[in-house]
Amino acid sequence: LSPAPSLLHSQIAKEVAKLLDMKAQLGGDEGKQKFVLKTPKGTRDFGPKEMAIRERAFKAIISCFKRHGAEVIDTPVFELKETLTGKYGEDSKLIYDLKDQGGELLSLRYDLTVPFARYLAMNKITNIKRYHIAKVYRRDNPAMTRGRYREFYQCDFDIAGQFDPMIPDAECLKIVHEILSDLQLGDFVIKVNDRRILDGMFAVCGVPDSKFRTICSSVDKLDKVPWEEVRSEMVGEKGLSPEAADRIGEYVQLHGGLELIERLLQDPKLSQNKLAKEGLGDMKLLFEYLTLFGITGKISFDLSLARGLDYYTGVIFEAVLLQQENQHVEEPVSVGSVAGGGRYDGLVGMFDPKGRKVPCVGVSIGVERIFSILEQRLEASEEKIRTTETQVLVASAQKKLLEERLKLISELWDAGIKAEMLYKKNPKLLNQLQYCEDTGIPLVAIVGEQELKDGVVKLRIVATREEVNVRRESLVEEIRIRTNQC
Amino acid sequence: LSPAPSLLHSQIAKEVAKLLDMKAQLGGDEGKQKFVLKTPKGTRDFGPKEMAIRERAFKAIISCFKRHGAEVIDTPVFELKETLTGKYGEDSKLIYDLKDQGGELLSLRYDLTVPFARYLAMNKITNIKRYHIAKVYRRDNPAMTRGRYREFYQCDFDIAGQFDPMIPDAECLKIVHEILSDLQLGDFVIKVNDRRILDGMFAVCGVPDSKFRTICSSVDKLDKVPWEEVRSEMVGEKGLSPEAADRIGEYVQLHGGLELIERLLQDPKLSQNKLAKEGLGDMKLLFEYLTLFGITGKISFDLSLARGLDYYTGVIFEAVLLQQENQHVEEPVSVGSVAGGGRYDGLVGMFDPKGRKVPCVGVSIGVERIFSILEQRLEASEEKIRTTETQVLVASAQKKLLEERLKLISELWDAGIKAEMLYKKNPKLLNQLQYCEDTGIPLVAIVGEQELKDGVVKLRIVATREEVNVRRESLVEEIRIRTNQC
Repeated sequence: LSPAPSLLHSQIAKEVAKLLDMKAQLGGDEGKQKFVLKTPKGTRDFGPKEMAIRERAFKAIISCFKRHGAEVIDTPVFELKETLTGKYGEDSKLIYDLKDQGGELLSLRYDLTVPFARYLAMNKITNIKRYHIAKVYRRDNPAMTRGRYREFYQCDFDIAGQFDPMIPDAECLKIVHEILSDLQLGDFVIKVNDRRILDGMFAVCGVPDSKFRTICSSVDKLDKVPWEEVRSEMVGEKGLSPEAADRIGEYVQLHGGLELIERLLQDPKLSQNKLAKEGLGDMKLLFEYLTLFGITGKISFDLSLARGLDYYTGVIFEAVLLQQENQHVEEPVSVGSVAGGGRYDGLVGMFDPKGRKVPCVGVSIGVERIFSILEQRLEASEEKIRTTETQVLVASAQKKLLEERLKLISELWDAGIKAEMLYKKNPKLLNQLQYCEDTGIPLVAIVGEQELKDGVVKLRIVATREEVNVRRESLVEEIRIRTNQC
Repeated sequence: LSPAPSLLHSQIAKEVAKLLDMKAQLGGDEGKQKFVLKTPKGTRDFGPKEMAIRERAFKAIISCFKRHGAEVIDTPVFELKETLTGKYGEDSKLIYDLKDQGGELLSLRYDLTVPFARYLAMNKITNIKRYHIAKVYRRDNPAMTRGRYREFYQCDFDIAGQFDPMIPDAECLKIVHEILSDLQLGDFVIKVNDRRILDGMFAVCGVPDSKFRTICSSVDKLDKVPWEEVRSEMVGEKGLSPEAADRIGEYVQLHGGLELIERLLQDPKLSQNKLAKEGLGDMKLLFEYLTLFGITGKISFDLSLARGLDYYTGVIFEAVLLQQENQHVEEPVSVGSVAGGGRYDGLVGMFDPKGRKVPCVGVSIGVERIFSILEQRLEASEEKIRTTETQVLVASAQKKLLEERLKLISELWDAGIKAEMLYKKNPKLLNQLQYCEDTGIPLVAIVGEQELKDGVVKLRIVATREEVNVRRESLVEEIRIRTNQC
């Protein structure tokens, strides 16, 4: 009995499919050449050395956030696409979308601020001080040597709630000051401005309301581009009148401290504008608080500071490192922003079904640029950074002592000692000592036949080559004492 | 002079576009109802309480990994799509792809093992012991109450390099044992098997070579599904002969210790199979090392353990928590896997242009299920978990002391004290004390007019309501002493 032709066909089809499938699977083994061995554009791996540096920087930042009483939260790496829509203005084109594989449309988070606002609205939280350290994603042009990546860390600290004016705002600036001082990144200045001062300035300069945001993003380029170029963008591309542009040009050159604020409060045009007056009044209060904190020396009220993001509503600020290239340069050169933030009182309300607002102010530490600086500095120095914390290597002086090493290392682990051994049955003593030199392990616990008979372990101090016999039952205590000294 | 009609048209078009754009922007304000306020399916936020629990679990896990001398690395959250292709067998359909927005095709990482192998091959590393804690992504059916999410943490520890057999493998099991003991999750068992034993068993049972992997994933279901169902999948869906299935059925019921290994080494069929013999020999060696580590009490050699992933080549293992529901049940019930891993000697070679192999063995801690257990336990207990580390609240007894509070808190921050204050100009003392009760702050530093005159600060111990006057210059030291006692 032969099967019906149609059954035969379907069987053949099945077999062909199977074979193709097997071929595809084998492809991974045979077609090795086709693999491109790289991380995606604009991203990088962190090896053990980079991680050691990264953890140092995080430690300084987290301890500052905790010093200021912050809680910590975390949110998913992706959000519903609509959660991110309409929050970033011109930058929205840089958002990474996930493929539509059925179900919800998702995008990778672009910052930690919008997810934070979504979290507050979703959980009806009106009052929180929290930090959040996580990666964010932007399809920007990477400049990796300068620390600009498509996947990068943000370290955010935000204060949400209805409070008396400028007290949380001042604390955010204090935090930036503490972190940059603690990390010893060299001289820095924190530029401060207020969106209300900018908007008031635009109004008195004759910018139409509808052009406020787009003229604001032109002003935002002033830290990278000379005024003449920004002016021609305003007039040419954005259709602003030359007179209005020139009036803006006069204001955005101004920077200073309390005396500039006082002067602008007397400015015949600005002082007539409600928004500008509010902003300048709060700026004065802010400077009073910063004086109490003793940090005005590094703060500059700067009318050219605009910040790119749409959601700011009040104080904005940005910290830049200064590089004294040589003594003859009059003013220190800015080498780029390492922290920024501001007040965004409307963002949470955008997520609330009833539009209830939760005023927020926060700061984001640009930690990638900080990593770059720390990495370069470490490279330039002679410092050898350890990538493990191992206290002791369990070694043997003769062959056939694997079992004894396993027994000893197990005892040490169970006592909380950080211990390693070479994964060889019969390693040479020289290789074991060399491993300690290479990795910075300070102690070697050597088992040998004589020591086993005597109930001792030979403890070798790698730095001095000193060796002492320690009774087995005292070994843990001896290692603890010796590594606290190291 | 009126403009040409075409110019007029283009101007109108521009204006309409602008208006539509403005409308879209306003839409965020007016059309609030349309927002769905949620995190994507299968994901969740971690609030301050969940974070406190998460950090506790991570601390135990990281300190174990460091105790074993591991370095740490990190890789990007997405990889080139082709990096993940052909590594996960039937599970590949669960990979999240990014939208093609021009440029490279990307996918979210599915585990940390494949990125690790890519990292090793790319950097030509043949020898490393590292851990990696990060989120991975699977478009699986979420079961969030049981700790199964689409975005979840993995905590991986792996040893790569050519070493003497079973020494690193034994250390991985020791690590699982240490972590599960340390976290006090209750009784557990670590099931162990070897892919070579499975393959040998399939061969002697009469499974054709081409069906090894697919029969293996049927066996993998035995922890959730009874044998009869698995058997009918093998015979019905996968076309295995009923006799072969029955032979497999006899083997996969077996579990035990060294005596079972010895018995199978004498098994007339298995002992004739090269792979099975190798696997059993290594299993015997593994049990010898585990005996030296003193942990065989919690290890079960289990022939039904298969593990889903394609890339394993040798030892495989999985830790499950046991729940003693009541005294009368004969065997404790398994409540699910909390750790798993194994040896994958071929994976790095799949990335190397010349196919050079780097043998690897590693373990992944399933920390989400651990979070769930710890959260439930905390909920059941009366323990109140603190979400900040604040040592002292800077408070005032009278009005108009904001400036004095700002000065004092600034001094404390600069001295490294964790301090908070209420962001109000004139907070009531009662509200300030209540804030300490609510958040667990142990101390209050109270400034008042008399204290300022006397050069002292009143320090209140919240728990006892005791109050002492401390000289301003001794305050930092006093807070340090008092909070070390707390």
